[in-house]
Amino acid sequence: MNRPLVLVSHVPPDDICEALVESFGNEAEVAYLPHLKGLRRERALRAASGVITYHPIRDLGLDAIALLDSCELIQCLTAGIDYLPLNEIPDHIPVAYNAGAYAEPMAEHVVAMALAASKRLSVEHRNMKVGEFNQFVPTKKIDGSTCGILGFGATGREVGRVMRGLGMRIKAVNRSGKTDEEVDFIGTLEDLNNIISTADVFVITIALTPKTDRLIRAQHLSLMKPDAVLVNVARGEIIDEDDLYRHLIESPAFTACLEAWWIEPVRHGKFETRHPFLDLPNVIASPHNSAMTGDALIVAAERGAENVLRMLRGSGALYIADEDMRML
Amino acid sequence: MNRPLVLVSHVPPDDICEALVESFGNEAEVAYLPHLKGLRRERALRAASGVITYHPIRDLGLDAIALLDSCELIQCLTAGIDYLPLNEIPDHIPVAYNAGAYAEPMAEHVVAMALAASKRLSVEHRNMKVGEFNQFVPTKKIDGSTCGILGFGATGREVGRVMRGLGMRIKAVNRSGKTDEEVDFIGTLEDLNNIISTADVFVITIALTPKTDRLIRAQHLSLMKPDAVLVNVARGEIIDEDDLYRHLIESPAFTACLEAWWIEPVRHGKFETRHPFLDLPNVIASPHNSAMTGDALIVAAERGAENVLRMLRGSGALYIADEDMRML
Repeated sequence: MNRPLVLVSHVPPDDICEALVESFGNEAEVAYLPHLKGLRRERALRAASGVITYHPIRDLGLDAIALLDSCELIQCLTAGIDYLPLNEIPDHIPVAYNAGAYAEPMAEHVVAMALAASKRLSVEHRNMKVGEFNQFVPTKKIDGSTCGILGFGATGREVGRVMRGLGMRIKAVNRSGKTDEEVDFIGTLEDLNNIISTADVFVITIALTPKTDRLIRAQHLSLMKPDAVLVNVARGEIIDEDDLYRHLIESPAFTACLEAWWIEPVRHGKFETRHPFLDLPNVIASPHNSAMTGDALIVAAERGAENVLRMLRGSGALYIADEDMRML
Repeated sequence: MNRPLVLVSHVPPDDICEALVESFGNEAEVAYLPHLKGLRRERALRAASGVITYHPIRDLGLDAIALLDSCELIQCLTAGIDYLPLNEIPDHIPVAYNAGAYAEPMAEHVVAMALAASKRLSVEHRNMKVGEFNQFVPTKKIDGSTCGILGFGATGREVGRVMRGLGMRIKAVNRSGKTDEEVDFIGTLEDLNNIISTADVFVITIALTPKTDRLIRAQHLSLMKPDAVLVNVARGEIIDEDDLYRHLIESPAFTACLEAWWIEPVRHGKFETRHPFLDLPNVIASPHNSAMTGDALIVAAERGAENVLRMLRGSGALYIADEDMRML
């Protein structure tokens, strides 16, 4: 029995290795590149039908990529691949992103941030520390209010599902302007002004591409309700950093919940902001850790494996990065 | 047409007055005590079938209470009436609390606090401020975890409904050990140890009575999971203050979300704690403002009016304070 080979560019923790082996079952052999040396390594690279990786350039290297004679798919394990230099990968090898890999934990994180802001948790905690007990300060009601979602892929849809469960009306933007999900409005980027101006909570889950780079600027922020809550769990670059800082200063009742940053360690080797966002009372910050719940990395690996299996079974891998998505 | 008179002890804002008038429709006349002087005031007090009030002693006064010859119900607008000196009200006048008056906004506040704690929002925000960007720090997954609820009245049931929507398993305590709600477990106080030891999030919504005063002590806290989240939206006194502070110091992964306090302005005229809870990194504090969403006070007034209408229609008012509930 000659099973196709799926090569993993790194050695994941045991539980993820087990999940991969179980996912592929008898349909593919799984090997881990760092375990292979010399001729065995070269043979494996030439024979691999698919590669699973976090970062093809860093984890495989260009010399290994050049040996991928039989490879029909490089499957990334991260949902966003904007920071990968895809142009260094030969055109004949499709690269897939792991769409919605962390949809559920990210949606929970969005709820946590959006409600913490709406209920003034950090603001009133600070006020209590300086002796103010504002028992009659109004907070925002979630039930019946409106959640705008920019990017209605797997993660955006999960955010929508959870927010709808809390009674929010859902207005979303995707590429087609169509969806099978239960929404109150679905449109395209042409509807952005309408959605952003009516949202109580506006969540960004869209991929970073040349088209979404600095998509949200002063002109959009100025349309938002004075007490709106903006949640970014996608990429910092989708919001103009200077414009957002200025808006936060000028609109103290507005809150930005920032899980994704402009310069952050995994993508850029460091955390850096152009403005002191962390010192503002109307910012809730988290270190891009929304995906780090118990089994989230295992689920993400299973989702990546599932897409490789689609390719191996001839039904076609999904989520292939096209020219429009390439940032580098 | 001689309609029964419902006397309101204070003059609420216009929107609440309108809601009361609309609630009673043709079934009762509504009058506001501060608008009445001299003989008209005395006649109204003697004639009133029902009284709506926040605080019967403070807002009516003992002299006015003594004139309530025809009164069959004093309906309080607050859900908790533990701080009212009910023994100063003649025994023949039933006093009703406004059960679940603020159930929905309180449940939203519980979600906000429980998720903020589970997702480490305030902890990692602080870490980022001192230069730590902990992208791989694990956070608690909500879906599939367990929510214990102490007190399964209207507010507890609403907490359960919302938490179940987020995928939590619900284990609740009420007086009867029975419920029509969809729960994974329902029991009585005899099951407290079981529930508190398996809860990822443990929410207190029970009324403060002689039986629940300092109900939660060191022995219960020590049973909780090391990284559990405790949310108190009921009354501070239900938890032993010294024991909780000690537990927070000894269990840094444990979080207490405190919306209800031991000494707080509305009930005691000031905010005071015996220990510096607000300085602890594992405390999330709010100033008992969970009910303060847009229309919550209107909804609460309508619920109070609805209970008065039950009395006027002869179907019997609900939520009459009995001897077991009287704290003062």
